[in-house]
Amino acid sequence: MIADMESTFDVELKLGRDGLVPAVAQDATSGEVLMLAWMDAEALERTLTTRRATYWSRSRGEYWVKGETSGHTQEVVSVAIDCDNDTILLKVNQTGAACHTGNRTCFFTELTGAAGEQA
Amino acid sequence: MIADMESTFDVELKLGRDGLVPAVAQDATSGEVLMLAWMDAEALERTLTTRRATYWSRSRGEYWVKGETSGHTQEVVSVAIDCDNDTILLKVNQTGAACHTGNRTCFFTELTGAAGEQA
Repeated sequence: MIADMESTFDVELKLGRDGLVPAVAQDATSGEVLMLAWMDAEALERTLTTRRATYWSRSRGEYWVKGETSGHTQEVVSVAIDCDNDTILLKVNQTGAACHTGNRTCFFTELTGAAGEQA
Repeated sequence: MIADMESTFDVELKLGRDGLVPAVAQDATSGEVLMLAWMDAEALERTLTTRRATYWSRSRGEYWVKGETSGHTQEVVSVAIDCDNDTILLKVNQTGAACHTGNRTCFFTELTGAAGEQA
């Protein structure tokens, strides 16, 4: 599928040691960063083709259409790749919570306060 | 330093195979996602303590204070960790371009148009 990627989208992913690249999902409207998951070329191609965010689950070892079970889908508005071809940024219309905890975003735990107390 | 992290910030990073976690830097004002780099516990602690975004450079194999050479520093406004303790989100005041290409963000290459033509 990497060959297809190259010919179809003119991009070759620079994969990490685990054969994946990180993919950041950002709310297309609010700009809030919702979550980070992982993709290979096949996941990226499926995402671009179906406009449903599709990741590779490192824990389950399988492709994972976000929201397929929970209903908390991500409709893909735009996809960008970074200057090194090793990170993907998705802007999405998020249905419901992005996080499996029920929080809107996975990044609900602030570390900064603790650091401030140390400063 | 992981022990320090646990006692100081009450967080234990869940590291990837390469001993790192991805760290997303987002413009604290505009919400724009600027770049993604990599951290270990030491980089996170340095970032929290100094309020200067500090990453681990995979290519150079050393800690890297963003902007130390270019002057394009990132003043850290807030730091969050995700629900799985395996991704960091920094909100930063970015001086100059975040990207080494001179672009404001590393994500200046859109893939979505090509996909739209295929659909």
